[in-house]
Amino acid sequence: MTESPYPLISIEEAWRRIAAVVRPLRPALQPIGTVLGRILAEDVIADESIPALPSSAMDGYAVIAGDRAPRLRVIEEQAAGREKGLHVVAGTAVRIMTGAPLPQGADAVVLVEDAIEQDGLLRVLTAISAGEYVRPVGQDLAAGDLVLSKGSLLGPPEIGLLAAVGRAEVLVYPRPKVAVMATGDELIPPHCKPKPGELRDSNSYALCAAIEAAGCEPLHLGIIPDDEKALRTAILDGVAHADMLLTSGGVSMGRLDFVKPLLAELGKVHFGRVAIKPGKPLTFATLQDLPVFGLPGFPVSSLLSFENFVRPALRLIGGHRALWRPRVHARLRHYLRHSTGRTEFQRAVVTEEDGLYWAESTGLQVSGRLKSLVGANALLQLPADVDDFERGDEVVAILIDRPEIEALAPGSSDPR
Amino acid sequence: MTESPYPLISIEEAWRRIAAVVRPLRPALQPIGTVLGRILAEDVIADESIPALPSSAMDGYAVIAGDRAPRLRVIEEQAAGREKGLHVVAGTAVRIMTGAPLPQGADAVVLVEDAIEQDGLLRVLTAISAGEYVRPVGQDLAAGDLVLSKGSLLGPPEIGLLAAVGRAEVLVYPRPKVAVMATGDELIPPHCKPKPGELRDSNSYALCAAIEAAGCEPLHLGIIPDDEKALRTAILDGVAHADMLLTSGGVSMGRLDFVKPLLAELGKVHFGRVAIKPGKPLTFATLQDLPVFGLPGFPVSSLLSFENFVRPALRLIGGHRALWRPRVHARLRHYLRHSTGRTEFQRAVVTEEDGLYWAESTGLQVSGRLKSLVGANALLQLPADVDDFERGDEVVAILIDRPEIEALAPGSSDPR
Repeated sequence: MTESPYPLISIEEAWRRIAAVVRPLRPALQPIGTVLGRILAEDVIADESIPALPSSAMDGYAVIAGDRAPRLRVIEEQAAGREKGLHVVAGTAVRIMTGAPLPQGADAVVLVEDAIEQDGLLRVLTAISAGEYVRPVGQDLAAGDLVLSKGSLLGPPEIGLLAAVGRAEVLVYPRPKVAVMATGDELIPPHCKPKPGELRDSNSYALCAAIEAAGCEPLHLGIIPDDEKALRTAILDGVAHADMLLTSGGVSMGRLDFVKPLLAELGKVHFGRVAIKPGKPLTFATLQDLPVFGLPGFPVSSLLSFENFVRPALRLIGGHRALWRPRVHARLRHYLRHSTGRTEFQRAVVTEEDGLYWAESTGLQVSGRLKSLVGANALLQLPADVDDFERGDEVVAILIDRPEIEALAPGSSDPR
Repeated sequence: MTESPYPLISIEEAWRRIAAVVRPLRPALQPIGTVLGRILAEDVIADESIPALPSSAMDGYAVIAGDRAPRLRVIEEQAAGREKGLHVVAGTAVRIMTGAPLPQGADAVVLVEDAIEQDGLLRVLTAISAGEYVRPVGQDLAAGDLVLSKGSLLGPPEIGLLAAVGRAEVLVYPRPKVAVMATGDELIPPHCKPKPGELRDSNSYALCAAIEAAGCEPLHLGIIPDDEKALRTAILDGVAHADMLLTSGGVSMGRLDFVKPLLAELGKVHFGRVAIKPGKPLTFATLQDLPVFGLPGFPVSSLLSFENFVRPALRLIGGHRALWRPRVHARLRHYLRHSTGRTEFQRAVVTEEDGLYWAESTGLQVSGRLKSLVGANALLQLPADVDDFERGDEVVAILIDRPEIEALAPGSSDPR
């Protein structure tokens, strides 16, 4: 009877061991055209007020609100751009464009729709009060304001703000680069025709896509045969060129499963088995402080191990503070079989009805059946200490990040 | 009194005019390493069953379940990979690895943990039934199965499936390329220091990020001055090199607002004003069948016009069937001022409490204040025919795609 030398640990203990050794990358200065989805690693302060001068909010005429003259002489034009040093005095107006600085003396803007200009004379058709259509100094941002604080996620508005305050480059946690290899003598590339016993490599492609979906950069190392020397070279190569390494396959208890022994020899294995289904042989190691996940070879096990362990680890490395997917409590639409002893993740479709979430399985849940993930918008987390679930029982549903999730909101596919 | 030549149309009519002319791009064959987030433009059928032969689900020994011999002679080993043509007969077993094809004659696998092998003889420690730990032919996929249908969104599992069935390249709707220019004499690049009246260009950076976040490819054309000839050249350049063109600014009613007249001259303007706040001067045109949006120059107007019109149009172009963000009904935490006549979009934070959604404004909602979008996870859509809202009133909240949205789910930042 061969026993694995690695104790079976709980999912919680596995995450504790990962979080204990995974650290954010060193922040680096990057151009703002490249930082979407990154985390800011500095506080950003406004260097100037926006607007820096009182400005027109609309196209029209800069006037003195209290001016009682029946006609105003249009003395000049102030377009957006350089301030021309114009002055508005009683009885005069300056034609002004949206965004242009207000001439000295003026305190309001009359809209172009609310006035008639003829032969250089302006008739104002409405009552005007001081400050109307004028954007005061600092309305958008005041000089010295904290614009964005360290730890902010950079989305489109934040990137706009960085540009507005003159930060063409900004300190961020860099995008993690993740090397991926598939291992196994049975594997062939997708464009080849399998001979009896051969199988096309799908995991490395699914994993590279999952890495990209997590905002990281995949580095595809291809297929490595079940050969200790080749695998050793490939692992060292991956570690040298990336911030994290993922291997797929070769972590079972077969004679040719070299991944665990090699990781133990080249670095430190933090765990080699986890009480989860699927994904029990999941392995986590560090080599020269670089995290390495030995993912199981079955396609569903591989992707769910990524989802539950690798993705939050990548978010840690990328400087994120929010590591986890949203979770809701969902009621089962049907009986669900589950054996105690391991935390199980079943693929499901969760829908909302009158404020309640309902979960339905995507069918046969064997580890090889990638189709069980197609169309799934949630993973049902079935605890290790509870057995079968009845129809109507409540379970935790992890909402996975897929646009189909929009189906959760009623009417979301209707054009407003 | 100058009136805009463009009638003010409703938000619904604006979308109808966009949807009437925007068409998906022509599908193209692309390598599966590049198709994350794309929409499949063909039905994909499995060419082979997976597994193609009965295979072992675990590491162990291939045996005959009904074999009553006290010891089995281990005659050979079958690793994953090429089928070796082995035969198991009564009294014998074959050592087998996870994923390896089952030898002829065998009908079950004994786990390595459940047997003792010594001097070539195997003692089985548990009862074995036929089919145990054997993956039957076609368990994951059967030859001829429809694997993915036309219109599927390609995420990591779908890309894995494509690899598994030998589709190294697949027909998808290509990633739309979107050219972006900022217009205005007042604009300077982010790395420059503004002189009085000047303003740093922030819109083109925010828009490029929004394009990227929508899964499309931005093409940054930079800042174009308020000069008709320069603008004409830039518009023709953008149209020649992209699938869509966005301009920012120059759509108001000032003398130097050349965008609308140029679009009317070079193509067809479908609308030039929409009854929305912010974003009233939003313009939509086609030039040589290519969609062009003239976005307003104020930063919030620009990004919200993108969100409400450009993003769904880009999804149409990219072949998506689901165009819209999820929407929920949220109660207001406070009084909200709103004037009738235009549909208004206020930036807000929506949180869930006991199955109810609550919305809170992000503060001053002027069109220039990008900070009103920072931290917002929703847009409150206030209808054109209703005025102020009281605390507790229900409004439609559009949940915008930001990881902060995870805060919607209670406990989502806790490690499981």
